[in-house]
Formats: sequence, structure tokens, C-alpha cells
Amino acid sequence: VPVLARRAAIVGCGLIGGSVGLALRERGWHVTGADAAPDRAARALELGAIDAVGSDPGAEITFIATPVRQVAEAAHAALAAGPGLVTDVGSVKAAVVTEVHDPRFVGGHPMAGSEQEGVDGSRGDLFEGAVWVLTPGPTTDDEAYATVHAVVSSLGADVVSLDPEQHDRTVAVVSHVPHLTAATLMRLADERAEEHGTFLRLAAGGFRDMTRIAGGSPAIWPDICGDNRDAILDVLDVLIADLRQMRTVVEADDRDGLLDRLHQAQKARVSLPVRGGPAQPMVEVRIPVPDRPGAIAGIMTLAAELGVNVSDLEVAHSSEGGGVLILVVEAEAAPALRDALAEDEIRSSSTPLP
Amino acid sequence: VPVLARRAAIVGCGLIGGSVGLALRERGWHVTGADAAPDRAARALELGAIDAVGSDPGAEITFIATPVRQVAEAAHAALAAGPGLVTDVGSVKAAVVTEVHDPRFVGGHPMAGSEQEGVDGSRGDLFEGAVWVLTPGPTTDDEAYATVHAVVSSLGADVVSLDPEQHDRTVAVVSHVPHLTAATLMRLADERAEEHGTFLRLAAGGFRDMTRIAGGSPAIWPDICGDNRDAILDVLDVLIADLRQMRTVVEADDRDGLLDRLHQAQKARVSLPVRGGPAQPMVEVRIPVPDRPGAIAGIMTLAAELGVNVSDLEVAHSSEGGGVLILVVEAEAAPALRDALAEDEIRSSSTPLP
Repeated sequence: VPVLARRAAIVGCGLIGGSVGLALRERGWHVTGADAAPDRAARALELGAIDAVGSDPGAEITFIATPVRQVAEAAHAALAAGPGLVTDVGSVKAAVVTEVHDPRFVGGHPMAGSEQEGVDGSRGDLFEGAVWVLTPGPTTDDEAYATVHAVVSSLGADVVSLDPEQHDRTVAVVSHVPHLTAATLMRLADERAEEHGTFLRLAAGGFRDMTRIAGGSPAIWPDICGDNRDAILDVLDVLIADLRQMRTVVEADDRDGLLDRLHQAQKARVSLPVRGGPAQPMVEVRIPVPDRPGAIAGIMTLAAELGVNVSDLEVAHSSEGGGVLILVVEAEAAPALRDALAEDEIRSSSTPLP
Repeated sequence: VPVLARRAAIVGCGLIGGSVGLALRERGWHVTGADAAPDRAARALELGAIDAVGSDPGAEITFIATPVRQVAEAAHAALAAGPGLVTDVGSVKAAVVTEVHDPRFVGGHPMAGSEQEGVDGSRGDLFEGAVWVLTPGPTTDDEAYATVHAVVSSLGADVVSLDPEQHDRTVAVVSHVPHLTAATLMRLADERAEEHGTFLRLAAGGFRDMTRIAGGSPAIWPDICGDNRDAILDVLDVLIADLRQMRTVVEADDRDGLLDRLHQAQKARVSLPVRGGPAQPMVEVRIPVPDRPGAIAGIMTLAAELGVNVSDLEVAHSSEGGGVLILVVEAEAAPALRDALAEDEIRSSSTPLP
């Protein structure tokens, strides 16, 4: 290990913690890992996901990759142990961000997983092309945010900054309720299958796709459903109401109503953003930022609200205090961002990148 | 074209019709194809899915691959045009089997599809390892059934014989309601996405898997929902009730209730039969059959009810009338089949295959 290697720590050596470790080590970091289960930490060491088992008070950044309900406590411990930054990878964010208000803490959630669970499923390329949400809170320091953004981006992830509440409402729709629905469909089919031996042999590709996530470990779901209960209940209510409408359409043999609904779904599905699409022309947008907490996080959250993907971020300090935030975004998206900034009386400039 | 090639006809040159044509031609058949849209038939010819455009009254077997609502009329026309057998590939079976009661007609439904629709998506290997349901009716001739079974098996499909009503109830659970649910989830997410530009960027693999089928063409669904309405409404009611239960579990923070449901779903998903699993030891079961219509179809339907997969079938005639049905099934499954036959006072014998 080179003496000058950047140092990171991982708390929780599961699939995500192990993958963060592998990805960081591939990029030259020195990674120390801990886990409540000593054999998991030992296995992470064996797999090369960490350099050493234990804690590292000198780590520049600590990734909390424990189950959701243990994140706040682990984050507080890491913040108390040393001067470094702390981020986490939990699937629900508002509760944690409310509990951990420290300038050096940045909430996060990589939207990546694997069929294979546990540290043995870890992959150094797990985050390449994946969206990694950051949810800076009102007390998050801009430098801390910019550093976490840079480290996470360096692992190949597309960083999206969101309000913690907006994150939680969104994942209720695109992750939590779909999971509960997949499990419900699978149980329903399983119960029907008891009536007839051939039943599940008729389950072709579409059914397999729809129920794939129901094959995952249930262990993480009670915490997720507890922490994101309100958003999940809200989305379940809408889903149930929409299915009742679909039932009415089918019952009435309302062909046009059915076609309208299916066409809308088809159009939306076909235009779902694809990971790693063709490279777009990029521009650098330079934005003067006042030297006050949350200024950069506020701009990043605005970019996310506008659907502007920030593929790189840098903060250049000026001698008069404050500084310049330099964002790399798709050329097509830059005008919308600059217009929105102008409405807040922030004058930005933009330069095409080669 | 060799003079002695077996001759087949295809009515409806879409994805399934074209794939049947390609698969038969690869096996030496001469295939004639027709389509209500002349350019589709021309395209099938161009792609090598058929040898000639038009009808073939001398075809040994005609595959009706039109939209569901046109199957009965096309089947009647094909039965009237020549002495050959007729089968279809429609997604709903009870309505068609009721309308077409002819000894030479055998209803069918290959459980295979492709992301690419239309004749351009056709593949000669589309049915390899796929389940192909046959739904012989009370008037179906045993020889006709056995021939269709043999032809369809020769394309690489696993044939499962079912009552038309059992088929329709099953596909409501494993295909029709999942499709409507995927579309409903996709619409819900799409409507939420209008509130926030980044929304759908957070849709990771699980959501993409769950909504994939919603990207398919809506055109076939009004007919399917119309023809299989009762079964679909029944399953939608159960799904809605189950989702309401799931809502109650989440609202009450009932961790054990949630874990129970997710564990049941996980177990069922993990044990979903996989296409083309490892080869099992097989046996030949010889079953004497009386010379009356529907005897063989009845035995095949019994096998399916027991979950016994018949991978090959042959009928040997005896000089005294009647004959012997020879089924190739997994050794493990043979005793259950033979026991059930014995209950109907049918004495079978079984020989291990090498």
C-alpha cells in the first residue's frame, strides 16, 4: 500500500459495502472494513474488498453500509471517531438525514443491486452506469458534498441529488411498491398452483421478469417498509385504485379505455432512460456560489428537479470568498439549468467541451 | 423443394406465424403462408419464413396465427378447404374450442414471445424449450391430436395438454393480469414523473424487469381481455384484495406478517421451473386406449393435471381395434401417472429409457 493512498472505511461488509470496497481499491484507495459479524469482515478481506479489518479514524470518507435502521448510530460513531466525511447507502433517506445533522454527513443511496446477495456478490463495477442518489441535508457542508460527489462519481456512478423526502417518495414508486407487488403476484400464482400441477410451467418470460425481484432476500424489507411507510401506503393506495379502474375497463369491455391505458404505459416504458446510452455533447457550466452552507447542494438539487444529469462537478475557490461551481452536463440540458438559475439571479456561463 | 416434403400452411404471418414457418422450414417442411395484409405475407416470404404466399388445401397441418377474434373463422375456412389438420396459437382457448368443434381441430397456445414484434421478430428457435399448450376438445380426434403433438414437439417445444378452461384460468394468473399490472405500475410511475424530472432515472433493474412487458404492443389486449374476461376479473379481484392485505401489514408495521409473505414469495420464485433444466431419467409408459374419440386427449389432460411433463408421444394401433399410447415421461413422475390411470382401471406398463 503506497503511503499516500487515500483512505476510506466501510461499516457493513455486505453486497454494497463489499462492492464499494472493491471499487475503491481498484482505484488505489486503502480500505478498512468492519462488520457486526466478524466472519463477514473476514470474508471481505479474503475477497480483496478491504485491505484490513477494523476501523480507521483517519479515513477521509466512511461508507455506512449497514441495514437501514442501524445507519444513524453507525454514522454518529464514525463522525465521533475522526475528522473525515461520512456517507451511507441506505434505501430510505428522510429518517437518517433527520437524525444525523452534521456538516460532514451526506446521505446517499446507490440504485444498484445484484441477484447474488452478500459480500460474495460484490463487484467492483457494480456502480458503473448506475444512479447514485445523494441527499444532502440543510446542515451538509458544501465541501463535504462536493468530495462525496467526486468519490462516488469516480466509481462510475451517475450522481443525482435529491431532497430526502423526494427520494423516499420516488423509491416508493420505482422500488418499494414494485417489490411488494411482485411478491404479491408470486404468492397469488403459488396459491393457484396448488390446485394444478402444470400451473407454473406456463409461467413464461414475462411472468419471470415481473416476479424476479420477489426472489431476493426478505430481510431488508421490514426496516424499509417501516422507515418509508407513509410514502409506500400512499403509492399502494394509488396502485389499488388504478387496478380497480383497470378492472372496470375490462368488465365493461371498454376497448378504447384499455388501449389508451396500455398505449400510455407502452410509451412511458419505451422512453424509460437507458443506462449508458450514446454519448451526448457535453458543456461545462460555471456558476458563482456564495460562501454559505448548502449553496452547492441547493444548486445540485435544482439540477435534479429539472432532470439535468450532472456528470462531473468541481468547486474552484476565489480569493474574495465564495467560489465557482463547475458542472459538466449534457449540452441539451444546459439552457434549462441556466434559465432556472437566472430566475434566482445567479448568472452562469457555459463552455462546450470537446 | 423435395417432392415428398411434408406440407404446412400458416394463416397470419406475424411473430408467431413467421416463427412457426421458419421452424418448420428448417425441418424440411414446405410452408405456404397467407395474411390479411399482403405486405406481411410478402415480407414473410422475403425472410424465408414461408416458401410461397397463398393457401394450400393439401397442407397436412394449418396453423392459424391470426388475432384471437379471427381464429374461429380462419379455422373453419381451413377445415373446409382441405382434409388436413388445423391448430391455432391464440392466447385464449375456451371460446375458440367451443366455436370450432371438428375432429381435425386442436386448439393450441405456444407460451413464447419476443421483444421484437411482427414477422421481422420471427426466429426458428423461438419455441425451443418453451411450453406449448394444446387444448383438445371433446370432439378432437386422437390421431389428429397425436400428430399435432408430434409436430409441435418437433419444433423443440414442451407440450402441455390442458382443458381450455384450465388454460384460460392459468394464463389469467401468469400472463394477463401480470400484463395489466405492469402497465398500471408503469402509468403510475409516469404520472408521478411529471412532477419531477429525475423521477424515472431512479428506475433501476427491478423496475425495468417488472414493467418490461408493458412495452409490448397494446393491439392484442382488447380481444384477450374480452375473451378471457371472467378469469381476468377473478384474478384482479384476488390481486387487489392481496394488495390491500399487504397495505394493512405495512400500515401496522407487522414485521412478521411482512416477512412471512415475502418468504413465501421468495420460496415460490426460487422454485419456479426453469426452462431446459438438467436432463432427468426418462421412462416409456405404455397405455392401452379404447378406440373412442378423446381417449388419448383425456389421458394427456390427466397427465397435465398431475404435473407430468410428456416429452414424447406415439400411438401404436393394435389389430383388434384400439391401440397403445406410448408416452415418454420423467421416471420420477411415472408412478403418479400410472396410479391415477389405475384408478380409472387402465393398466399401464413402464420401461426405463437408456
